[in-house]
Amino acid sequence: MLIKMKAKIKTSLPGPKSSKILNKLKKLNGGYYDPYPYVHSNKGDGCYFYDIDGNLFLDFACQVASNPLGYNYSELISIVKKYSTYPVKYAGQDFAIKEHAELLEELLTITPHDLNAAFLINSGAEAVENAIKICMRGREKAKFGLAFEHSFHGRTLGALSLTHSKEIYTKNYLKIPNQTLSYNENVGEELNSLLKSYSSEEIAFVIIEPVQGEGGYNIASKEMLKDLRKITRENEIPLISDEVQSGVGRTGKWWAIENFDVKPDVISAAKALQVGATIANKKMFPESGAISSTWGGGALIDLALGKKIIQIIKKEKLLNNINKQGTYLRKRLNEISLHNVRGLGLMNAFDLNNKEERNNLIIECLKNGLVLLGCGKKSIRVIPPYIIKKEEIDEGVSIIEKAYKKISKKGFKHTGLICKYMSCGEHPT
Amino acid sequence: MLIKMKAKIKTSLPGPKSSKILNKLKKLNGGYYDPYPYVHSNKGDGCYFYDIDGNLFLDFACQVASNPLGYNYSELISIVKKYSTYPVKYAGQDFAIKEHAELLEELLTITPHDLNAAFLINSGAEAVENAIKICMRGREKAKFGLAFEHSFHGRTLGALSLTHSKEIYTKNYLKIPNQTLSYNENVGEELNSLLKSYSSEEIAFVIIEPVQGEGGYNIASKEMLKDLRKITRENEIPLISDEVQSGVGRTGKWWAIENFDVKPDVISAAKALQVGATIANKKMFPESGAISSTWGGGALIDLALGKKIIQIIKKEKLLNNINKQGTYLRKRLNEISLHNVRGLGLMNAFDLNNKEERNNLIIECLKNGLVLLGCGKKSIRVIPPYIIKKEEIDEGVSIIEKAYKKISKKGFKHTGLICKYMSCGEHPT
Repeated sequence: MLIKMKAKIKTSLPGPKSSKILNKLKKLNGGYYDPYPYVHSNKGDGCYFYDIDGNLFLDFACQVASNPLGYNYSELISIVKKYSTYPVKYAGQDFAIKEHAELLEELLTITPHDLNAAFLINSGAEAVENAIKICMRGREKAKFGLAFEHSFHGRTLGALSLTHSKEIYTKNYLKIPNQTLSYNENVGEELNSLLKSYSSEEIAFVIIEPVQGEGGYNIASKEMLKDLRKITRENEIPLISDEVQSGVGRTGKWWAIENFDVKPDVISAAKALQVGATIANKKMFPESGAISSTWGGGALIDLALGKKIIQIIKKEKLLNNINKQGTYLRKRLNEISLHNVRGLGLMNAFDLNNKEERNNLIIECLKNGLVLLGCGKKSIRVIPPYIIKKEEIDEGVSIIEKAYKKISKKGFKHTGLICKYMSCGEHPT
Repeated sequence: MLIKMKAKIKTSLPGPKSSKILNKLKKLNGGYYDPYPYVHSNKGDGCYFYDIDGNLFLDFACQVASNPLGYNYSELISIVKKYSTYPVKYAGQDFAIKEHAELLEELLTITPHDLNAAFLINSGAEAVENAIKICMRGREKAKFGLAFEHSFHGRTLGALSLTHSKEIYTKNYLKIPNQTLSYNENVGEELNSLLKSYSSEEIAFVIIEPVQGEGGYNIASKEMLKDLRKITRENEIPLISDEVQSGVGRTGKWWAIENFDVKPDVISAAKALQVGATIANKKMFPESGAISSTWGGGALIDLALGKKIIQIIKKEKLLNNINKQGTYLRKRLNEISLHNVRGLGLMNAFDLNNKEERNNLIIECLKNGLVLLGCGKKSIRVIPPYIIKKEEIDEGVSIIEKAYKKISKKGFKHTGLICKYMSCGEHPT
């Protein structure tokens, strides 16, 4: 990027070309729930992207943390261009490709010591499913799993049974047996109390997000995680750190749980990695046939991108940038008196007074070219690419500041086309 | 393809280059279970592919039905080459791309009348999860789902709870509540009997594979499916046709269930489509937020390939070829006196006397360059690409015939490196 870019919205949102495609999606997509009021073009650079109507946006939502290096990073483009054969997706557990072995090898250079094997699969939800499956397999007396209030672990029914962030995700769906712990310092007491009613063998696993994602960007306390690790270790209950959103550098360390000096038995990852991964000690993985997936370990381009992303983060020392810019971002957000500014690295959020105000701020920012994403009941995520620079943070915060002033005026209400088109990121994972 | 290709194995299997990568996978892949003894190169044409050691194979396994048009189909290569930007994977439910709308539009031209909306996702398992989720959402009194003996619906815990093909897939895993029906003409009686113990509202859904995949390529009878549809319709229980393996042309019709003149309420698809899809009437899909997925509807290249694959099947009238070559293939397999030759279109199988013999035949064929895949207890799938020609069937059947003679000799036993490397497709989905 040679010329400094700056967000610029030229049309009403959605623009005419985007409207056409969004209306088609509304009609044909069974899962439709008001996507953002634009359609991506393939043009973009760094933290900025163009929609198909020529509007230029600054992206602090990063494809829900799936785009860690921004748009059109040259070394990643080279990877995509390298693949010009078909198929691009093999049945990778049966019919091997070298990209499978290569991503495993690269991934296992950054995992905590002893977590020396991984199973690669199609999504974060599937990575969580396999995390709980490898815990259950060796525990024939297991009766239920343990997860936390406000948790989000994915949309497949195993992961979803452990998800407690919003009722709409789970209503009327059949569940696997599970119980819920509080996401605070009471966890030790609660777990000990459970262990009076159940033998440790009856508890299949405990799964926790060290930083909760969709449920509100809540950060665990060190004490809570240390208690949890101590009791689960003493009772030989496997502990899963679900890092689908927080892993692979987002928090300024390779793994979110490393911020708490705690070592889990299993890590689930996906988003920034481009493929799902369940990571554990080789001995924790069950016998042949117990886990699998047709496309798992077979998606050529995604596997090659995942490997290159880890290599770029290393080579460009991006963990340093994530920590440096994260600190600066929180300082700037605090300066404009936003509530409950919090975060680790570039996984940050702040609160508004209520849901309506939150949605107003997201819409107002978007009208000025800044993409933000909701979470929890009244929070906004701020999750820019790892490559972000100080001046881009300044641009984004300046848009937030102006928008915050505007929507804080008494009686402020959004009107117009845009309101019909977006649910303000209320449901994304 | 101008020059006639012919399978040719030049090295021991696995060859030296493949060995190196397979050994790495064995060490690092937590889900490792003896993949086939070769590693794919990107070279190949039609039904043939080269491994990285220069061996040329004839593929009657088709990436477990995921590669419907064979290797390096020129129009599909053009699609892959077209994408040379990053990211290639968007958070497609929140941040729209045009490829999402375009695949939906193309897919819905081939679905049964009234099944006019779809939700696109990352895998077949996830497509099944969403199929059962959309059935459950409107049924608050639902207590359990119904699936069939020998079924395979996927590896995530919702789909897996409904899977009964092999115990190793499910042992010790927590399940959602479910009951099992027989895969034969007793189904009407069994279902009516269940409806004496439970109200129809307590049954969340019935899910069936019209042709069972991993469980043994068992073909439902028309009577069985008609009874099932009649009783489920009368009792307003949603009927799901799981066509992850059998859909998108494999059986000679777009959808396997069309061979039985029965219309389901929901279809799940994936493999040949390159993305997962849950297809139903728009009215069956629940309210906004009830189903979603970060990457669902966002994988640019896979979505574009899925659309193009449907277009090529139409343009080249491949359903005709599937039916014609399928009939010829079964005739040839019957001529060499294989047991229980069965199939629809190019979804075919035959039986050996036992598992050992089955595995012997797969290994012996592979040594001669033909890739086959097991299923059930003692069956072998024969699932070549839709573009296969008579002479390629002749070549494959000739390899099977020679191998069958060899392994049928008393006391035949495989030895050597190859036996350490392959589980003969016992576990693939």
